[in-house]
Amino acid sequence: MPTHFDQELDDLKNKLLTMGSHAESLMQKAMKALLERDDELARDVKEDDEILDQLEIEIDDLGVQLLAKAPLAFDLRLITVAMKISGDLERVGDEATTIARRSIELSQEPPLKEYVDIPRMAELGRHMLKEALDSFLHRAPERARAIIPRDKEVDAMNKQLHRELASFMIEKPSTVTRCLNLMTISKSLERIADHATNIAEDVVFLYEGRDIRHQGLAGQE
Amino acid sequence: MPTHFDQELDDLKNKLLTMGSHAESLMQKAMKALLERDDELARDVKEDDEILDQLEIEIDDLGVQLLAKAPLAFDLRLITVAMKISGDLERVGDEATTIARRSIELSQEPPLKEYVDIPRMAELGRHMLKEALDSFLHRAPERARAIIPRDKEVDAMNKQLHRELASFMIEKPSTVTRCLNLMTISKSLERIADHATNIAEDVVFLYEGRDIRHQGLAGQE
Repeated sequence: MPTHFDQELDDLKNKLLTMGSHAESLMQKAMKALLERDDELARDVKEDDEILDQLEIEIDDLGVQLLAKAPLAFDLRLITVAMKISGDLERVGDEATTIARRSIELSQEPPLKEYVDIPRMAELGRHMLKEALDSFLHRAPERARAIIPRDKEVDAMNKQLHRELASFMIEKPSTVTRCLNLMTISKSLERIADHATNIAEDVVFLYEGRDIRHQGLAGQE
Repeated sequence: MPTHFDQELDDLKNKLLTMGSHAESLMQKAMKALLERDDELARDVKEDDEILDQLEIEIDDLGVQLLAKAPLAFDLRLITVAMKISGDLERVGDEATTIARRSIELSQEPPLKEYVDIPRMAELGRHMLKEALDSFLHRAPERARAIIPRDKEVDAMNKQLHRELASFMIEKPSTVTRCLNLMTISKSLERIADHATNIAEDVVFLYEGRDIRHQGLAGQE
């Protein structure tokens, strides 16, 4: 029979998963707003982001309460990991808001060119985020581990796009504002992939009890 | 007589303060590397950043251990806040590394102009970080509260500089690479001020037991 503590722990997990699907949907809305030049939708993203802010506070509060009565080491890890993941999801919402804001600025000028790389980065980031949350839900640290190397792909895509946009600006100074907005969006997508990676690392720590942050990162950026 | 638990809690606090002064010094080194075009120093920053990564892991491990035996609600808050602050300090190190990396790129070309705003932003950010850590050490939530509104000043300075650099690029496309590097540095300084603000909010939560995140932020960016 589940105890009261177990029920509260389930509450914590459910709140986190709600937050996760909310963050995913916010990110998708922001991309839709960008690609379809839909300012209305972009403004929705900014409002919906407040729900993530609120959930983060609720998860932290519940976490602190539960920590006082956690009977097992695993529970302690679960609670602290949940509090961390909620911080990452809250920041995914911030990045989605940045994308939405820049989309509104971009839709005031003619489109620069067909977007190719940005939807690809978004798709990869969204997939990483979904996998990270699924690996948490299904207690699958090996799925979480598989996400981590993909972060480098998104980094490389962001760097490549940054270079292309910088050259484009030099050739056509009239595009500077639009290129800068696209650079910011690309950077936001790169950060969303970072947050997904953080979540994946926390899931590995939770289920394997090993901290894999900052491993093999020496000499890299 | 202090108990074993109290001693471990002191350990945790001391590790965090070590991390704090390390983050401050890394930020100052990065700025010195930028202003004096000192590539050697910039490379030091990148190496020293690993110390912050390591300390973050140690603080989290100690935190999870201590949570299992924390007798009081205040201790629980202290431990979770310490774990959060260490995450913010780790990210200050990442931003300092970004500044250092961009400084190396900048020193490969002639200086764009005398830097005025960037050292001012750095000074404000450094002051905010120091005050946030002092307010933690001296149990002074009112000092922590005083930091929070200053974040807007740094945001405004970053936006202003972003606009100036964007205009400059349009006028002189040959400066695009340098302007982009300076934009990234300005954004990193703005993020350092964000982290200082997060720490200040955590200190208020710790000593006043009230969560002041996301207050009065509706409708703002």
